[in-house]
Amino acid sequence: MRTITNPSQNEWQKELARPVQKMKDIQKIVKPIMRKVSRQGDKALKKFALEYDHVEIDNLLVTREEINEAYELVDEPLKDAIQQAKVNIEKFHQAQQTEDLSMEVMEGVTCMRRSVPIQKVGLYVPGGTAPLFSTVLMLGVPANIAGCEEIVLCTPPNKEGKVHPAILYTANLIGIDKIVKAGGAQAIAALTYGTESIPQVAKIFGPGNQYVTAAKQLATKKGIAIDMPAGPSEVLVYADETAVPAFIAADLLSQAEHGIDSQVVLVASSAKVAKKAIKEVDKQLKDLPRKAIAKKALENSVAVVMGNQEKAIALINDYAPEHLIINVENEDEVVAKIVNAGSVFIGNFTPESAGDYASGTNHTLPTYGFARNYSGVSLDSFVKKITYQKITEKGLQKLGPTIEVLAGNELLDAHKNAVSIRLKYLKDNQ
Amino acid sequence: MRTITNPSQNEWQKELARPVQKMKDIQKIVKPIMRKVSRQGDKALKKFALEYDHVEIDNLLVTREEINEAYELVDEPLKDAIQQAKVNIEKFHQAQQTEDLSMEVMEGVTCMRRSVPIQKVGLYVPGGTAPLFSTVLMLGVPANIAGCEEIVLCTPPNKEGKVHPAILYTANLIGIDKIVKAGGAQAIAALTYGTESIPQVAKIFGPGNQYVTAAKQLATKKGIAIDMPAGPSEVLVYADETAVPAFIAADLLSQAEHGIDSQVVLVASSAKVAKKAIKEVDKQLKDLPRKAIAKKALENSVAVVMGNQEKAIALINDYAPEHLIINVENEDEVVAKIVNAGSVFIGNFTPESAGDYASGTNHTLPTYGFARNYSGVSLDSFVKKITYQKITEKGLQKLGPTIEVLAGNELLDAHKNAVSIRLKYLKDNQ
Repeated sequence: MRTITNPSQNEWQKELARPVQKMKDIQKIVKPIMRKVSRQGDKALKKFALEYDHVEIDNLLVTREEINEAYELVDEPLKDAIQQAKVNIEKFHQAQQTEDLSMEVMEGVTCMRRSVPIQKVGLYVPGGTAPLFSTVLMLGVPANIAGCEEIVLCTPPNKEGKVHPAILYTANLIGIDKIVKAGGAQAIAALTYGTESIPQVAKIFGPGNQYVTAAKQLATKKGIAIDMPAGPSEVLVYADETAVPAFIAADLLSQAEHGIDSQVVLVASSAKVAKKAIKEVDKQLKDLPRKAIAKKALENSVAVVMGNQEKAIALINDYAPEHLIINVENEDEVVAKIVNAGSVFIGNFTPESAGDYASGTNHTLPTYGFARNYSGVSLDSFVKKITYQKITEKGLQKLGPTIEVLAGNELLDAHKNAVSIRLKYLKDNQ
Repeated sequence: MRTITNPSQNEWQKELARPVQKMKDIQKIVKPIMRKVSRQGDKALKKFALEYDHVEIDNLLVTREEINEAYELVDEPLKDAIQQAKVNIEKFHQAQQTEDLSMEVMEGVTCMRRSVPIQKVGLYVPGGTAPLFSTVLMLGVPANIAGCEEIVLCTPPNKEGKVHPAILYTANLIGIDKIVKAGGAQAIAALTYGTESIPQVAKIFGPGNQYVTAAKQLATKKGIAIDMPAGPSEVLVYADETAVPAFIAADLLSQAEHGIDSQVVLVASSAKVAKKAIKEVDKQLKDLPRKAIAKKALENSVAVVMGNQEKAIALINDYAPEHLIINVENEDEVVAKIVNAGSVFIGNFTPESAGDYASGTNHTLPTYGFARNYSGVSLDSFVKKITYQKITEKGLQKLGPTIEVLAGNELLDAHKNAVSIRLKYLKDNQ
């Protein structure tokens, strides 16, 4: 972890540059996969399961028996923990519901807005060594609250052709009944085009490797929406003397263990704060099972000593971190000035992992600087907000002439005429 | 305008197919333009103004004098109409503000959410024969309410190097002080990269021709967000015997005059309803100044006779129209069943042009079927919703063990450790 001191604004971009993502080559690999699934459907998915997951799949859909089995296999402490996380995530996402809006803007002119669920959504849950049931919660719970008609979950099977019981348990707990054994770009393709056993969806959510990311990008060209552009996960910790160095280090490492391309940034109020934290990082790193990964990630990472708080805040907003931990004495003041961040963790006892799992906020957040212009996943991500308007005869008599003037000046006479013809009708029928 | 009767569900996609958009060839033209602007900044913009707008531009930014001049040139009736539209749009978009959310999810665990404006936004207003000041209102008003720090408006100059006074007047009225004389792909490039006189923005809004659309797509690859994917404008009118045929026709034509690739669809409850409406279309078409365009658009268009209302609604939801006019007797019942539409216009006296200009709803809406998975532009489009969490010592003691179990089961030990190290600290310091 490099340390830089008081960098000037024109150095920020270079010094805090994120690892470059090369998607073009990967799209070349992904395109034929997408095409094959679009043409051959389930058959292609089974073929790719054999090729990439090394397993023969007869039934792409998880069965009732497999769900029952999962209930036996998940131990009670994990069940309880999943339940607690589910309750918190539900509470916070339920609170995000917006009431229908209806207002008489002027006499006889009523405008309305209503949240309507996206009908069909696809959730992707990556495979690999760890069962990411937390992703099932973070995507499935809001999809459920939104009222999406069909929720399809795709996740790769292991070598026995099974899905990890914790994923099945969680998915079933929140009422997802279509779980598909398909992973990688082929799963995204199935959700994009639909197959015999998998419905085409309108929006695809979820993390994944670069193949999944590339496939999601290609899906957008087919009219499918995606949750947000993806990039490696990242955290920025802003700390002063009131922060406990061991906590700073633990938070930096919890991000670093995600992957070798993760980026962690420490902004410290003094050289001393930075030094103590880095010392703790080195100490804690030794005992981590994923220390090889974390070590690599730390090589991309930097500690910035920034004595001036205004400048520190400017740098944070410029970087726009996915996760931002604010661990300074005047935390409220600083938090109020943050304009670009995915999710903010405040104080010594709010580790990032709380939000990753169980505090209630969503862990699907904008990375790679997208916190400048994107929100994290929320209830909003699963609905469209449709507007409505209803104008009475009297309302049109009042507003109509305004519309006529505006349309006329934009030289759109048919637009104008749609009003004029009605006003004339009202006059003739008075 | 073709008429088809009671098509079965598997024919819908084919019969109501939208005109195909070919973006690849256009991107080949747009890429070098983007590159040149990224390298040469203002110089490139001036060069392209000469090449495409046939005018030499000394000062890319509109001056105070030009604004003053515009105030003289816009006549009072137009000023009044713009003011009325502004008031309605403001009212409806102000009502979209969401209060900050803060809740103690469990003892000591507080989750919050706050809307924070996107700092810098770019608004594109196309040139051409008509001055699209309505677009300035539809984008500028919510940007203003959201509190965006910097709002940059780009629009092409005319051959005299001027911007239409109605655009300048409207932009100034809503407080946009940076108006740039730049159009086409080069304007989008300037907003994407920034130049000497134009700041780089985080999100770009606004309609445009296919070059602008292609440039916006390329901007997203540079980390800039855009309002939504673009496609030709469209309307679907659902009518029964209670609808006035002349009104149906006027609404269909007001969409058809937009461009030759516009699509208009009539869903009629009977052959008689369709026949009467089409007769009126032919009649009204004759008198339209833009009849050549409207006629071409009508060639892409179709009247569907659908006696069964449930099927008619299913077809509408399948098509997902940008603008949907519901003109049937049991309108409330039908409106409640609409799940895919950009904006809905209810009853005989609510023409689409009301929403296009002045009722208060936004006219920037998802076209091309994107109403399935996108909302129209609203106040939400100009903010990010940042989440926050603050956990007390007691809160972490309560929730911490849950996080430990979850992180441990996902094999992310550093995530677990960020909690364990804090719980240990609390135990040791009790």
